[in-house]
Amino acid sequence: MGIVVQKYGGSSVADATGIKRVAQRIVDTKRLGHDVVVVVSAMGDTTDELRDLAEQVTPLPPPRELDMLLTAGERISMALVAMAIAQLGYKAQSFTGSQAGVITTAEHGRAKIIDITPGRIQAAIDDGSIAIVAGFQGVSQDTKDVTTLGRGASDTTAVALAAALKADVCEIYSDVDGVFTADPRVVPTARKLDKVSYEEMLELAASGAKILHLRCVEYARRSNMPVHVRSSFSTKEGTWILPASEDEGTMEQAIISGVAHDRSQAKITVVGVPDKIGEAARIFDALAGAGANIDMVVQNVSAAATGRTDISFTLPREDGQTAMAALAKVESEVGYEKLLFDDQIGKISVVGAGMRSHPGITAKFFAALASEGINIEMISTSEIRISVIVDDVDVERAVQCAHTAFGLDADEVEAVVYGGTGR
Amino acid sequence: MGIVVQKYGGSSVADATGIKRVAQRIVDTKRLGHDVVVVVSAMGDTTDELRDLAEQVTPLPPPRELDMLLTAGERISMALVAMAIAQLGYKAQSFTGSQAGVITTAEHGRAKIIDITPGRIQAAIDDGSIAIVAGFQGVSQDTKDVTTLGRGASDTTAVALAAALKADVCEIYSDVDGVFTADPRVVPTARKLDKVSYEEMLELAASGAKILHLRCVEYARRSNMPVHVRSSFSTKEGTWILPASEDEGTMEQAIISGVAHDRSQAKITVVGVPDKIGEAARIFDALAGAGANIDMVVQNVSAAATGRTDISFTLPREDGQTAMAALAKVESEVGYEKLLFDDQIGKISVVGAGMRSHPGITAKFFAALASEGINIEMISTSEIRISVIVDDVDVERAVQCAHTAFGLDADEVEAVVYGGTGR
Repeated sequence: MGIVVQKYGGSSVADATGIKRVAQRIVDTKRLGHDVVVVVSAMGDTTDELRDLAEQVTPLPPPRELDMLLTAGERISMALVAMAIAQLGYKAQSFTGSQAGVITTAEHGRAKIIDITPGRIQAAIDDGSIAIVAGFQGVSQDTKDVTTLGRGASDTTAVALAAALKADVCEIYSDVDGVFTADPRVVPTARKLDKVSYEEMLELAASGAKILHLRCVEYARRSNMPVHVRSSFSTKEGTWILPASEDEGTMEQAIISGVAHDRSQAKITVVGVPDKIGEAARIFDALAGAGANIDMVVQNVSAAATGRTDISFTLPREDGQTAMAALAKVESEVGYEKLLFDDQIGKISVVGAGMRSHPGITAKFFAALASEGINIEMISTSEIRISVIVDDVDVERAVQCAHTAFGLDADEVEAVVYGGTGR
Repeated sequence: MGIVVQKYGGSSVADATGIKRVAQRIVDTKRLGHDVVVVVSAMGDTTDELRDLAEQVTPLPPPRELDMLLTAGERISMALVAMAIAQLGYKAQSFTGSQAGVITTAEHGRAKIIDITPGRIQAAIDDGSIAIVAGFQGVSQDTKDVTTLGRGASDTTAVALAAALKADVCEIYSDVDGVFTADPRVVPTARKLDKVSYEEMLELAASGAKILHLRCVEYARRSNMPVHVRSSFSTKEGTWILPASEDEGTMEQAIISGVAHDRSQAKITVVGVPDKIGEAARIFDALAGAGANIDMVVQNVSAAATGRTDISFTLPREDGQTAMAALAKVESEVGYEKLLFDDQIGKISVVGAGMRSHPGITAKFFAALASEGINIEMISTSEIRISVIVDDVDVERAVQCAHTAFGLDADEVEAVVYGGTGR
C-alpha cells in the first residue's frame, strides 16, 4: 500500500487526551499497511497565546522573530504526538518544517512554498517510522531563516507534502465531519457532501467556507492530489475533493454544491466620481498603495445630468480604515463628492459546476431572496458561482432560503459541529 | 572593542518585564561599543511545564522527541528577547542551537558539544546585529537531530560560544550577585568573592555550589575564557573566574576561597566483604553496570580475626535504589554479610588554592567540626579541597563553623538572593 498523509488541526491535538486519540488513529492507519506521514498544527490556542506574549514585549514584533516564536507551537505538538505513538509501540520521529524540506520564500508571516525536498521524511518512512511534520512552517530558500506560511496553512503543508511524496491521499482532519452544503450552524439541515470538485471547493473556500484553506485547494488541484476532509472525532467517511467527474452536468450531478457566506467584509462607496477616463484607476491605485485587498467592484451608469458616477467595492473589514484614509488623501485629485463606509454587510455565494450547463440559476437565486424580502446590494459572478452582498441582518435568512431553493436541505439534521477550527 | 557574550538564566527572562529589563541591559552593553552575543535559557518554569506535558502523554518519552519538545522553551525566550531589543531600536536576530553551529554528540538529553561553527553568528555581528542564541541545545553531528545538553548547560553553551568567537569575556547573569564563600541561605555572613581561579571554581562546582555548571567551568579553563558571574537585577561587579594568579599562595591570597555543601548524596556500606584480591573490583563492576556514579570511597582496615572488611561509598541519592539492587544481585558471588543504606547525610567541602602551601588546614577544619560535636563519617581530599561526610542534621552547623574558622565571615550581611536559579 502507498503513503497516506494525515493533517490534524489544533482542536484535534488541544490536550494530552486529544493527542493520545490522534496517535491511536495514526497507528490504526499504519496497521492497515499504509506508510503514514502526519502534519500537525499547534495545540489549541497556543499560537494565539504566543502572539499575546509577543504583544506584551512589543506592539510591532519583527516578522522574522515572530515566525521564530510561533513555530515553537508546532514543535511542541509534533513532539508530543510522536511520544504518544511511541507509547503505543510504534516508531515515530518528528520533523520541523526545515527538517522536512519545506522550502519557502522569505516573506515572514506569509511565506509561499517554493519546493518540498522530503529526503528525511522518505528516509523515516523507509525505516518503518511514522513521520510527524510541523505544519504552517518552513525555511527560506536564500536566508535559511525559519518562516511561517500564514493562518490555516498547515492544510497547505499537508497537501504539498503529499504531492512531493506521491501519496495516495491527503486526509485533512478537523472537528467537523466534512464539507457541508452550508455552514451547519446557520443551516441545521445542511448535508455533508460526499465529494466535491477542486474548482467548486476553490470557489467555496474563496467565498467564506472555512473548512479548507484556499491555497491548499489550489495546491491539490495543481498536483491532482485527492483530499479527504473528515472528523478526528469519528470514523465516518468525510468529503472527497477530487477532479471534476466525467458525468458533470448530467442529471446525476447536483447543480448547486453548496451555499457559502462571509461576514468578514466591508463595503466602501465613492459617491459622485467624475465620469472621466482614468478616475477609477486613480482610486484603485490609491487602494493598492494602501495594501487593501479588493473583492467585488460595482460602478453605476453615470447620471447624464451630472456626468458623475458612484463606485462601490468590498474588502476585508480590517482593511477598511486604511482604505478610507487612502481615499481621503486623494479627494482633491479625484474630485469625488463623499465616501460611505458600511461594515454591516454579508456575502452569500451559491457554487456549483452544474451552473455551466443549467441556465436560470441566477433567476432562481434572486427570486428566493426576493420572496424573503431581502435586498441585493451588489452582485458578482464566475462561471460556477453567483455572489451577492446583502445587509448583515439578512445573511442567515439568505443562506437558508437559497439552500432550500436549490433543494439542498437534508431530510433530517446530520451535521455535528464539535468546536472551534484549527489553523 | 571586542565581543561580549552574555548568558541570562530562566529567572532573568521569566516574564515580559524581565525580558524587557534584560533587553535594556544588552543594549546598554552594545552602546558601550561592544559586539554583543546573548545566550538565553527558557523562561522561568517553561522546561518543567514541557516535561509535565510529556508525562501526561507517556511515562517514558523517547529521548529524541523529548529534546525536540524541550528546545521549544529557548525558542520562545530568544525570539522575545530579540523583539524587545528591536523595540529599543537595535537590530537583533535569534538563532537556534543548530543555526548557531552548536555541533554535539547524539546522546539526547545529555549531549556533549563537539564543535562550534558560529558562521551565522559572526555574520550577524558583522552586520551590526545583536545575536540571541538558544542555550542548552545543539544539533547532532551525524544524525542532524536536535539535541539538549542537560540541565544547567546554557552556561556551557555561553562559554563554548565565547571561546569559538574569541570573545573578551563571557558574562553569566543569574539572580545572585556572584560566587559566595558559602551558600548565603545557610551562612548569612557569606562574602561575595571578587575573583576565583578555574581550579577552585571546578572544585566548588563539583562539591555542590550550584552557581555554575561543572562542564562550563571546565570549558572556560580549557579555553582560558574569563567568566564574569553577576546578577541581572543589579549593576554591581560580580565574581571573575580567571586563571590562577601569579601571587597565589602569598599573604594577599585567602587560603580558603569557600565552603560548599551538597545534600544530594546517599551512602552505601557493604559490610563484611572477604578481604581478598578482586572483591572490591567485583563490587564496583556491579555498580558501574548499574550506571551508578560513585563519588567518595572508604575501605576499613580488615579485622585480622575475621579477614573481612567494610566498604563505604557515596553516590547521587537518585541512583541509590538501583545500586542497592545491583549489589543484592552479586551477594553470593561477593559473599558480603549485609548492605547498609543511608540517605540522611551531607557533604561539606572547603576549597582553596592556598591549601597547597599552607599545612594544617585539615587539622583546623576537623577541630572546628569537633568543637561543634559533629561526627565525621567519611573523608576525601584533593590538592585544593577537603571534603567530609556528616549526618544530615549537622550540615548547616558544619558549613557555618568552617566558614568562621577560616575567617571567611563578612562584617555585615551583604548577600542578596533573589529567587530560584535558571538552568
